[in-house]
Amino acid sequence: MKLPKLILTDIDGVWTDGGMYYDQTGNEWKKFHTYDSAGVLFAHALGIRVGIITGETTRIVERRASKLKVDYLYQGVRDKFALVEGLCSELGISFADIAYIGDDLNDYRLLTSVGWAGVPAGAPEYIRTIATVGLRKRGGEGCFREFVETILGPDVIKDLLDRIFLTEQ
Amino acid sequence: MKLPKLILTDIDGVWTDGGMYYDQTGNEWKKFHTYDSAGVLFAHALGIRVGIITGETTRIVERRASKLKVDYLYQGVRDKFALVEGLCSELGISFADIAYIGDDLNDYRLLTSVGWAGVPAGAPEYIRTIATVGLRKRGGEGCFREFVETILGPDVIKDLLDRIFLTEQ
Amino acid sequence: MKLPKLILTDIDGVWTDGGMYYDQTGNEWKKFHTYDSAGVLFAHALGIRVGIITGETTRIVERRASKLKVDYLYQGVRDKFALVEGLCSELGISFADIAYIGDDLNDYRLLTSVGWAGVPAGAPEYIRTIATVGLRKRGGEGCFREFVETILGPDVIKDLLDRIFLTEQ
Amino acid sequence: MKLPKLILTDIDGVWTDGGMYYDQTGNEWKKFHTYDSAGVLFAHALGIRVGIITGETTRIVERRASKLKVDYLYQGVRDKFALVEGLCSELGISFADIAYIGDDLNDYRLLTSVGWAGVPAGAPEYIRTIATVGLRKRGGEGCFREFVETILGPDVIKDLLDRIFLTEQ
Repeated sequence: MKLPKLILTDIDGVWTDGGMYYDQTGNEWKKFHTYDSAGVLFAHALGIRVGIITGETTRIVERRASKLKVDYLYQGVRDKFALVEGLCSELGISFADIAYIGDDLNDYRLLTSVGWAGVPAGAPEYIRTIATVGLRKRGGEGCFREFVETILGPDVIKDLLDRIFLTEQ
Repeated sequence: MKLPKLILTDIDGVWTDGGMYYDQTGNEWKKFHTYDSAGVLFAHALGIRVGIITGETTRIVERRASKLKVDYLYQGVRDKFALVEGLCSELGISFADIAYIGDDLNDYRLLTSVGWAGVPAGAPEYIRTIATVGLRKRGGEGCFREFVETILGPDVIKDLLDRIFLTEQ
Repeated sequence: MKLPKLILTDIDGVWTDGGMYYDQTGNEWKKFHTYDSAGVLFAHALGIRVGIITGETTRIVERRASKLKVDYLYQGVRDKFALVEGLCSELGISFADIAYIGDDLNDYRLLTSVGWAGVPAGAPEYIRTIATVGLRKRGGEGCFREFVETILGPDVIKDLLDRIFLTEQ
Repeated sequence: MKLPKLILTDIDGVWTDGGMYYDQTGNEWKKFHTYDSAGVLFAHALGIRVGIITGETTRIVERRASKLKVDYLYQGVRDKFALVEGLCSELGISFADIAYIGDDLNDYRLLTSVGWAGVPAGAPEYIRTIATVGLRKRGGEGCFREFVETILGPDVIKDLLDRIFLTEQ
């Protein structure tokens, strides 16, 4: 079974439910889900790198990426397709080697180009319909982990669980 | 198909789920949804201005309005109907040219007067029944975007997506 | 139709969904719902006073009570029944004149004693079953307003809406 | 009916819905549910101690544990099984005397070893299936209290309610 060489992910609406928490002082919050951390762990256990590509720029995402040991972090990206094009050249891989999960307008072109395209449940219908990997979870409910588990497939996941994650601890 | 000349929106219970987060220090939070930002983008792409009218006064909403490049921001409004009456005179438009979405008592009179009246799912029944634009989403789930998409209609939205939003990036 | 002379309410699990937000610095948050504010407005329009009785003590609730012009605020209450007993003497009313909404162990005795007893949906079954006023909303979804609207009844609410709340603004 | 001598619990995804709230300054939040506090009260009323075992290390959990008078707090635990093994020696009890509720990879081995194993609804299927105590609630909805109530059983709970919790106040 073919596996991606790189797994990329949007943040807002994928690692979160799309919620942008604002306060009175200029501070801002995002709510992540602890389940998504295993998505990164599973990918890393197979030697697959993980990257974040988001249109926003916050220290929030920087901290989360660092906590989960995400390999690539691109914030403030206006043209996600162009960025990934450059990344492909740099890494000597093609769009067909990449899995991407995103949920809105600026994810569309990238989603239509990659080998595995995931869109969380509840995303706008015109984005949702281009997904090639079916997902039942919504953003912020652990849909990134579901995306990774679905791509790897039940046999690989079972093997990872048996060999590493359910025995080590 | 007729389109509104101005789209106005309430905040609490529309751009949020009605949640008012208080802490111990006097600070306050609101949780917005990233999906609503495309509602403003779609309106602007057609040259339709967007305004916020809310009874509360917070820097939270000021920041969100600024982030999304909302054209008009009216906070601390006690009489929304009177304010929009003045706005109509100023802009040389009528209530029939205006689309408004709100969810509670102080939205009632304005909702019964405008050309397009939206009320999020889950709002009090006596407000909900006066809506002329049907909405399935609740406040804070992206119902402002749903309101804009429903008013513009599937053909206009499809055209915007094809020409601009799904190709540019 | 008989109306209560006083409407009392618990906070956590009633005005909130039971969520206690803690941060790293010792600060704390509660999430209120804007819909509950109309519960206070309706009661006041009929000359019925509203009071909060809670086991916790926070500036959060103090601020919310002040914002909504709640008439009585009792925090840090260990024995809610005894407190209301004293309040009855002071005001010259009886338990039968009081409506109370609460959701947990320390609300039980008071709930079994008052004229109108409300318990939000989703509360523990052994508390829920003693409610005398049926409620469909959960804590934090506006169940206090639903409690007040249900007690006043559709005719009184319709009259209030027609005479005051849907015409004034 | 046999009762556990010690009730242990994970935090993220059990006492919370798995949400990790991050802000721009390095601060962090968790949202607890007030219902879980009665889980500790019920256990204590029967002389059963309660402990928290979590992989994370935050002052958030320290504060919550202290507020609820939790007897043992172990944070930053990498090997939960080994820790509980040590705890058993120290207390002179066996795994069969322990009830544990957890929801993810690092809870697996401990869950398969204890006398009562609880997994919140919505947890990954490969964790959920090893539960020996059925739970309907999800993390953050009061599933710790449900776990305790289910273990103690309806008769013990009824007795506690009648003798102590519904009469005292």
